[in-house]
Amino acid sequence: MKTYKIALLPGDGIGRDVTAAAWAVLEKAASLNGFSLEATSYPWSCDYYLENGSMMPADGIETLRSFDAILLGAVGWPRKVPDSVSLHGLLLPIRKAFVQYANIRPHRLLPGVQGPLRADGFDILCIRENTEGEYSGAGGRVHQGTDNEVAVETSIFTRKGVERILRFGFEQARARSGKLASVTKSNAQKYSMVFWDEITQRLSAEYPDVEVTSYHIDAMAARIVMAPDSLDVVVASNLFGDILTDLGAAIQGGLGFAASANINPDRSAPSMFEPVHGSAPDIAHLGIANPIAAIWSGAMMLEHLGEQAAAARVMAAIEATTARGIGAIPGKDKTDAITASVLSALG
Amino acid sequence: MKTYKIALLPGDGIGRDVTAAAWAVLEKAASLNGFSLEATSYPWSCDYYLENGSMMPADGIETLRSFDAILLGAVGWPRKVPDSVSLHGLLLPIRKAFVQYANIRPHRLLPGVQGPLRADGFDILCIRENTEGEYSGAGGRVHQGTDNEVAVETSIFTRKGVERILRFGFEQARARSGKLASVTKSNAQKYSMVFWDEITQRLSAEYPDVEVTSYHIDAMAARIVMAPDSLDVVVASNLFGDILTDLGAAIQGGLGFAASANINPDRSAPSMFEPVHGSAPDIAHLGIANPIAAIWSGAMMLEHLGEQAAAARVMAAIEATTARGIGAIPGKDKTDAITASVLSALG
Ligand SMILES: CC(C)[C@H](C(=O)O)[C@@H](O)C(=O)O
Ligand SMILES: CC(C)[C@H](C(=O)O)[C@@H](O)C(=O)O
Repeated sequence: MKTYKIALLPGDGIGRDVTAAAWAVLEKAASLNGFSLEATSYPWSCDYYLENGSMMPADGIETLRSFDAILLGAVGWPRKVPDSVSLHGLLLPIRKAFVQYANIRPHRLLPGVQGPLRADGFDILCIRENTEGEYSGAGGRVHQGTDNEVAVETSIFTRKGVERILRFGFEQARARSGKLASVTKSNAQKYSMVFWDEITQRLSAEYPDVEVTSYHIDAMAARIVMAPDSLDVVVASNLFGDILTDLGAAIQGGLGFAASANINPDRSAPSMFEPVHGSAPDIAHLGIANPIAAIWSGAMMLEHLGEQAAAARVMAAIEATTARGIGAIPGKDKTDAITASVLSALG
Repeated sequence: MKTYKIALLPGDGIGRDVTAAAWAVLEKAASLNGFSLEATSYPWSCDYYLENGSMMPADGIETLRSFDAILLGAVGWPRKVPDSVSLHGLLLPIRKAFVQYANIRPHRLLPGVQGPLRADGFDILCIRENTEGEYSGAGGRVHQGTDNEVAVETSIFTRKGVERILRFGFEQARARSGKLASVTKSNAQKYSMVFWDEITQRLSAEYPDVEVTSYHIDAMAARIVMAPDSLDVVVASNLFGDILTDLGAAIQGGLGFAASANINPDRSAPSMFEPVHGSAPDIAHLGIANPIAAIWSGAMMLEHLGEQAAAARVMAAIEATTARGIGAIPGKDKTDAITASVLSALG
């Protein structure tokens, strides 16, 4: 029997609750589809930091490298460790070290879910650059603590980095409606964003079947709210993708429904799957976190592993669950009840 | 009779249409309230650029300095001049040169306007830093045109710049509900945004009557859509404020309703008032642009000039107009019809 080795990183807060739920669903889907998943779980988290002084061991990245995929819950617990430390110590280095340059986030309403918009017919696929740009981590502070203090934060965009994510976006658009929206802010950021726009223009000649339109991030944020059905594939930088996908999560009914895949398209290192939501310390371990985003992320993992049938089975079980109203209304159902419903809908 | 000297910068596209409309309303409001407005109009725009090679004359800033206020339409016409050139040649230098560090943008539904959200009871005041941060214009490109090309864009935050906008935010919150939301992304941007958070923390001790909460930009974008009524005064950096205020415009029914004021709180130079929308070349000079955002911005100008009664008169006339359904539905009414209705509602 085919066996996939999966690294589990439940992380902090509700990350642990939803990872356990997702894992139960994935294991059952695997066995129903004739393959197996083997989990190795790592306790890397803010608690781990408090004990060990780092978010993961020095060889953490090397440890993860041998896995077929990584399933992550959520990282961060600001009362224990500043977010700027915890995220730069665990989540962000994995995305970068494993060149998971394409962060894919689907936004559509599951059956039975009512979103905050009057509009409901939308199906957006956000492709977020995931390794550089505004998240480069380059910068510093001078005259610290004085009136004269200055903080700088430098966004770094490489041609290779921009080209590969745009190509990925063009390919996704080609496989869907043929429409690609590229998001920048080239009217205000005349180095990085003009660079991105130029590369978009140049690549578009290679994809004559794809209609690409450039939007400024502010106009795109408004468009997601005003006319979400006018969008299909959206490609954006690290920061802009971050913002747009929380917006996407909002219009799909909330962060409890937003799944994501951090993909290394070359498969030179493992990809990582995680819900868009954070660790939500205020509701951690109360058994009330919605596991749907994590389960959906797990389905994306199965798809990436090549197990399309099992992935479709999990998605169908999620949809059957929300269509029955279970897990469809934020805060109504317990984690266990939602998980049980998805498990039984698997067949 | 008291006379205020106003510089009119209609700019490009619908900027010209809506500035003319706003000016008619402001002139009448002034005369009804016993003061007068004297306009000097400058043709600085992308057309001007095509003729003169710059968006404004070399002494443009000095020319504007002697006015009591500036009323601007919109800048940019990408087919004529790249946005990165036109905006850095006119709008952005004015904001910076005149230290208009507080960009104020109100977001609420006018009577009769249906927004895209199911929710309607919200009243948000966004305060956007307007002179530095992600709009510093610092950066460059190396190895241009080669595979090895790198573009960098540096956000620069000064203690003075951050402190003054946060203080402005605290003051506004104090004058309203006492609730202030400060927006950063300190989990990913560990220099600039951590700096902002630290200053927020420190200043909060000086404003014990204001309850300040820090949000990440992604979470705030989602919140504006999911729970806009949970927000009152929101303070954010230049870029984050830009994004949030287009979102605010979206939930208030569209960019046709979103007003803004670029304020120099020290009054050491003129402030500038402009609708949030752009020049919309596709509908320029068709007589169909909604002038309400520009008229509302004009009301903010009257308020800044100390003409509270006239400002209130203009706002009441806008509200009477949209309450009658005129100008309330994007695309339905012509610029002239909406303007005529506001004019007659002035009394
Ligand atoms: C936790 C944070 C650093 C992260 C990000 O901004 O990438 C999260 O918001 C996300 O979207 O995955
Ligand atoms: C035109 C553009 C540079 C400008 C900005 O980003 O500041 C506009 O979007 C605004 O919000 O006033």
